[in-house]
Amino acid sequence: MTHESAVPPGTTVAQIGETQLLEAFLPVATTRGPHVLVGPGDDCAVVAAPGERVVLTTDTLTLGQDFRTVWPCGYRTTGTDLGHKCAAQNLADVAAMGAVPTAVVVSLTLPGDTPVQWVADFAAGLSRAFEELGATECALVGGDLGRGAELSVTATVTGRCEGEPVLRSGATGGGTLVHAGVLGRAAAGLDALEAGSPGPWDAVAGSERLALRAAQLRPAPPVPLGPVLARAGATAMLDVSDGLLRDAGRIARASGLRIDLDPAALEPCVAALAGPAAAAGADPWQWVLTGGEDHGLLAVLPVDSPVPPGARAIGSCAPASPVGRHRTNGPEGQPGRGPSVTVAGRSSAQWFGRDVVEGWDHFEP
Amino acid sequence: MTHESAVPPGTTVAQIGETQLLEAFLPVATTRGPHVLVGPGDDCAVVAAPGERVVLTTDTLTLGQDFRTVWPCGYRTTGTDLGHKCAAQNLADVAAMGAVPTAVVVSLTLPGDTPVQWVADFAAGLSRAFEELGATECALVGGDLGRGAELSVTATVTGRCEGEPVLRSGATGGGTLVHAGVLGRAAAGLDALEAGSPGPWDAVAGSERLALRAAQLRPAPPVPLGPVLARAGATAMLDVSDGLLRDAGRIARASGLRIDLDPAALEPCVAALAGPAAAAGADPWQWVLTGGEDHGLLAVLPVDSPVPPGARAIGSCAPASPVGRHRTNGPEGQPGRGPSVTVAGRSSAQWFGRDVVEGWDHFEP
Repeated sequence: MTHESAVPPGTTVAQIGETQLLEAFLPVATTRGPHVLVGPGDDCAVVAAPGERVVLTTDTLTLGQDFRTVWPCGYRTTGTDLGHKCAAQNLADVAAMGAVPTAVVVSLTLPGDTPVQWVADFAAGLSRAFEELGATECALVGGDLGRGAELSVTATVTGRCEGEPVLRSGATGGGTLVHAGVLGRAAAGLDALEAGSPGPWDAVAGSERLALRAAQLRPAPPVPLGPVLARAGATAMLDVSDGLLRDAGRIARASGLRIDLDPAALEPCVAALAGPAAAAGADPWQWVLTGGEDHGLLAVLPVDSPVPPGARAIGSCAPASPVGRHRTNGPEGQPGRGPSVTVAGRSSAQWFGRDVVEGWDHFEP
Repeated sequence: MTHESAVPPGTTVAQIGETQLLEAFLPVATTRGPHVLVGPGDDCAVVAAPGERVVLTTDTLTLGQDFRTVWPCGYRTTGTDLGHKCAAQNLADVAAMGAVPTAVVVSLTLPGDTPVQWVADFAAGLSRAFEELGATECALVGGDLGRGAELSVTATVTGRCEGEPVLRSGATGGGTLVHAGVLGRAAAGLDALEAGSPGPWDAVAGSERLALRAAQLRPAPPVPLGPVLARAGATAMLDVSDGLLRDAGRIARASGLRIDLDPAALEPCVAALAGPAAAAGADPWQWVLTGGEDHGLLAVLPVDSPVPPGARAIGSCAPASPVGRHRTNGPEGQPGRGPSVTVAGRSSAQWFGRDVVEGWDHFEP
C-alpha cells in the first residue's frame, strides 16, 4: 500500500527542497496525541511527562546492516516496512520498561535517489505501527531529514511509567521466567528472505513464507503487555532483540540469577516452525533459542504471581550461587562474571549436542 | 587530545564485540547527572522531567554531508570534534526553547575500520561539550552502536523548561530582534577547511585560520542564554543553524512578522571577519547574513524589555501587513505566504546589490 504525496510520481528527494519533503512526510504521519504539547515545526517538540519522568530509547536501522533494499528472495523492502520496523523495535524497548510509548522523533538519512513516495510511505508505516501494535498514545513529534550515501533511520521514543520502571537487574530473588510474543519467527523469516530461488525454501508453502517474511520485516511486539507485566509484579524485563539465550543471559547477569529454560514450554514455538524448518533444512530450536528481532517481552515474575494472559512461563530463575556466578555464558560471559542460562539443566551446547551461536552482536569479530 | 581505552592502539570496531566497544565508550562519557534516574544498560533510560513535560530534539551528522574525515586544507576531523559538534547542535535546539538540557541518547553507525579510540574520543568530546557549553545538568543516558558503510551519528536530547517553552510562533505583536552567540564564523571556518593550499587562505594568519576552523568544527552556542532570554520575556526563539536570513524568515513566517535587520548592529560581526575575508577574497556580509552552523540564539523580545547581557539587538519586528504577508521570502517563501525579512528596509538582494543564497537547505535541488 502506498500513500499519495503532492509531488509527481517518481520524484526523488534530490529533486525537491526540505520544505517540500516535509510536506510529503508530515501529513501522512500521526502527529497528534494525548501527550503532544508542541509537535513538529519548532526547534524541539514538547511532550507531556506524567509522574515527572520519562523513559527514553533510541535505535538505528541501516541499509545493508539491518535490512536490504532487495533481498535474495526478490522481495523489495518498502518504506512502509521500514517505518513499521523502526517503530516496533523502539516501542518494544519502551514496553520492556513497563512503560507506555508517548512520542517519537525520527531522523532519516536519505540518498538523493530515494523516491519522495518512499519517505511518505515510511511516515505512514511508522504511524500505522503505533495503531497496529497498540501504542495508541504515541505520536511523531519531530525529526531531522538529511542526505547521505547510505539509507539509515534512527528513532527515539519516549514513554510514561505508571509505576516504577522495570529494569533488567531487579529479579535478585529469582522467580518465574515468562515471555510474551513470538520466538524464532523473525529469524525464520530472515532465512526465507535470504534464500534464493531455486532453493530449499521453494518447498515451503507460499502463505507460510509470506507470514515468516512479515515476521522479520514487520515484527509485532506485544507493546501493551509491558505495563500489564509490570502490574503483574515483573521484577526484571527486557525485549528479546538478540535471541532468547543471549537476552536471558542479560537478565541473569544483571539480576545475579541462574535461569533454566523449560524446553516443554518452548515446544509450541518450535512446533509452529517445524514444517518450514524441515522443508528448508533448518533447526527450529536454533531459531527459537537464538533468533533475534522478534522483540517479544521476557520478564521475571515472583513465583506466586499469576502469569497474565498473553504471556507464558518458559523457565525458572534462582539466585546464582557463588559457583554459578563464575560460569561463563555465551559471547558476553567472561570468567568470574555472569551466571548462566541453562536448558533443562544443561548448557545450551550440551543440550543442542553442539556449539551454538547464541545470538546477535553488532560487532562480533 | 585523546582518551585511553583498554584495547590496544589501532584496534578497530570490527575487531571487538559490542560489549567491549561499550566498555571503551561508557567510562569516558558523563553518564551521571541530576536528572538521570536510570542510566545506560537497560532497554530505556529513565530521565527526570520536572514540571511533567520534556522538550525533545534529534539531529544527525553524516560523513560527507555534514563533515569530512579529511578536509581539503588537510585537517582530519577527530572523534572529539564530532562529539562536540553533535552535542552543540542538539543543545542549541534545547536552549532555543528556553529550556535546560537534561539528557542525551546517541546512536553511532560505524564502518568496521573505525578505530575504537575514535569512538572513545567521540564519547569524551560529547561529554566535555556539556561542560564547555554550560549544559551542566546534562548526561549521556543511553544509545545504540551499530555497523554501517557510512559513519553517522544521531543524538537526541531532552530538556526541562522552567516556564512556558518559547516557540517560533509567539511573537505576533512584534518586538526587538536579539541575537546571542556568533554569526558567520562557522561559515568562514567552512571556507577555510575547504580551501586547498596553495590558495587564498594561506594569506590569513595561522591563528585566525585555526580559530575559524574551530568555529565550524566545534561551534559554541550560548546554551545557558536560552533560559535567560526566556526569562527576559522572549516571545519567539530559534537557533541559527541555516543562516540568519533564512532563520529570521522562519520566525517571521511562524509569528506573522516583518523583520528588519539593522546592518549597524551586525557591523561588529562583519568587522571581526573583515581581515580573513579580504585575504580569502570572500564577502564577510555573506558569511554573517547567510552562514549556518553557528547555532547562536535568535529571539524576539518585547520592545520595552531590557536586552540581557550576552545578547544584542540586531533588528526590529512588526506585525506583517496583509500586503507584507504576500511577499516572498527566499527559497522557502511562496507567493501568498510568509512575510519578509529585510535589511535596512530593503530586500537582501537589493541590499547586497545581487542575488544571495539565503542559507542552507539539506535537499535544495
